[in-house]
Amino acid sequence: MEHLEGRQSVFAALQARQRKIDVILLKHGIHEDGVREILDLAAALNVPIRSVDPGELEAMAHGSSHGGVIAVCSAKPRTTLDQLMHLLDTLTEPPLLLVLEGVDDARNLGFTLRSAEALGVHAVLIKKHLWDFDSIEVARPASGAYERMPLVQIDDVAPLKELQRRGLKLIGCLASVNRTIYDADFKAPTIIAIGGEKRGLSGAIRDICDLFVTIPCMPEPSSLSLSHAGAIVMAEAMRQRAQGRRQRAE
Amino acid sequence: MEHLEGRQSVFAALQARQRKIDVILLKHGIHEDGVREILDLAAALNVPIRSVDPGELEAMAHGSSHGGVIAVCSAKPRTTLDQLMHLLDTLTEPPLLLVLEGVDDARNLGFTLRSAEALGVHAVLIKKHLWDFDSIEVARPASGAYERMPLVQIDDVAPLKELQRRGLKLIGCLASVNRTIYDADFKAPTIIAIGGEKRGLSGAIRDICDLFVTIPCMPEPSSLSLSHAGAIVMAEAMRQRAQGRRQRAE
Repeated sequence: MEHLEGRQSVFAALQARQRKIDVILLKHGIHEDGVREILDLAAALNVPIRSVDPGELEAMAHGSSHGGVIAVCSAKPRTTLDQLMHLLDTLTEPPLLLVLEGVDDARNLGFTLRSAEALGVHAVLIKKHLWDFDSIEVARPASGAYERMPLVQIDDVAPLKELQRRGLKLIGCLASVNRTIYDADFKAPTIIAIGGEKRGLSGAIRDICDLFVTIPCMPEPSSLSLSHAGAIVMAEAMRQRAQGRRQRAE
Repeated sequence: MEHLEGRQSVFAALQARQRKIDVILLKHGIHEDGVREILDLAAALNVPIRSVDPGELEAMAHGSSHGGVIAVCSAKPRTTLDQLMHLLDTLTEPPLLLVLEGVDDARNLGFTLRSAEALGVHAVLIKKHLWDFDSIEVARPASGAYERMPLVQIDDVAPLKELQRRGLKLIGCLASVNRTIYDADFKAPTIIAIGGEKRGLSGAIRDICDLFVTIPCMPEPSSLSLSHAGAIVMAEAMRQRAQGRRQRAE
């Protein structure tokens, strides 16, 4: 069992219906108007609510931003590769996926999931052998996106090759190439690959990339963080796709 | 006196020469090759080095990522409005400034300073009555940019009006407008204004904006964080400016 903290995460988890929620704990005396949406949806879904002592809540909480709301629930289930393939079949637009490698900070992952959702990414793949994140630390900055975004955990590049066989292009972001993100086509079915700050993309992923791109930047020592670089590339994909839709509509 | 933690921050502070550095503390037995750059530059600048017990270093450190290097130093000096005006006079390209309002997270500020530097911003203005950040928490994610980036702390909008009188356009980012960042001109002298996630830009800043823009996004409940939104807008400014330079060169 895990738990989730804060109104936004708990409400998003109720809506997303991916986790099994055992009980929602509310701080005794919490203003009901502020949690009305949660109470209503929990009632509709038969999720029990329990009023607890502030002390009990504090003892459970990892952070200070729970605002009197904690849900005791199963872990967010991972999306399997089969489920991902099924999801791709149901899309009405060319798939846009993000694969992250070498992420080792839960907060940055959370912010990246939030931006991925806002910028039209359909699913996020994380290449990571072991899931060693505190899920609460991922969920908080994700502002609900952690509950909603399909998340596929992969061990090696086989799933990426499988996606390439289905026609998706794997576009790797590197600091050292000439082609910029503005000279690449993100309108076709695409997987954007972003590597961690320490080592960048691994040889295993570089070996199978269809294309490499870079974000135009000032020279060193300045640099972009993984999560900011990700946001900029995804925004460019969103821009190209919106422009493509406008051109088709004209 | 403050202190700075980690090789990157300490080396950047030595290079930037904005802070007065009293002494650099190195963990006893630290591998000299790993701190060679720091030792050389400190010697050239007559900054004393002291080898200390690991326990002494741990007792001072706020985080766990100091890597055996701590500098005892003055606070990073703020850039005054006069200094900023002087800086603008020396630029060989149209100024690009960023003003942040309602930032309340040190790490997000640090990441934003890092991106601002990487994306060609000349100075960052922070509208904040009280500087209540732990500077170490700002410096670490900024990866040296906190030391190098001119930082102007402002109390009200008078400095922004002054900059407008000098010909800079104040472009405010809002979620609710029709004009996108791709339909605005960032090549001219520009101040990009970004507001905090809770309240967005204040009325005081909105009242004087020359233009409002939005980042195209998926509908709610998805959203972008302040620091990712900032990175996306600054990257668009960088793109337009690089394109402008290429066109002039042709």
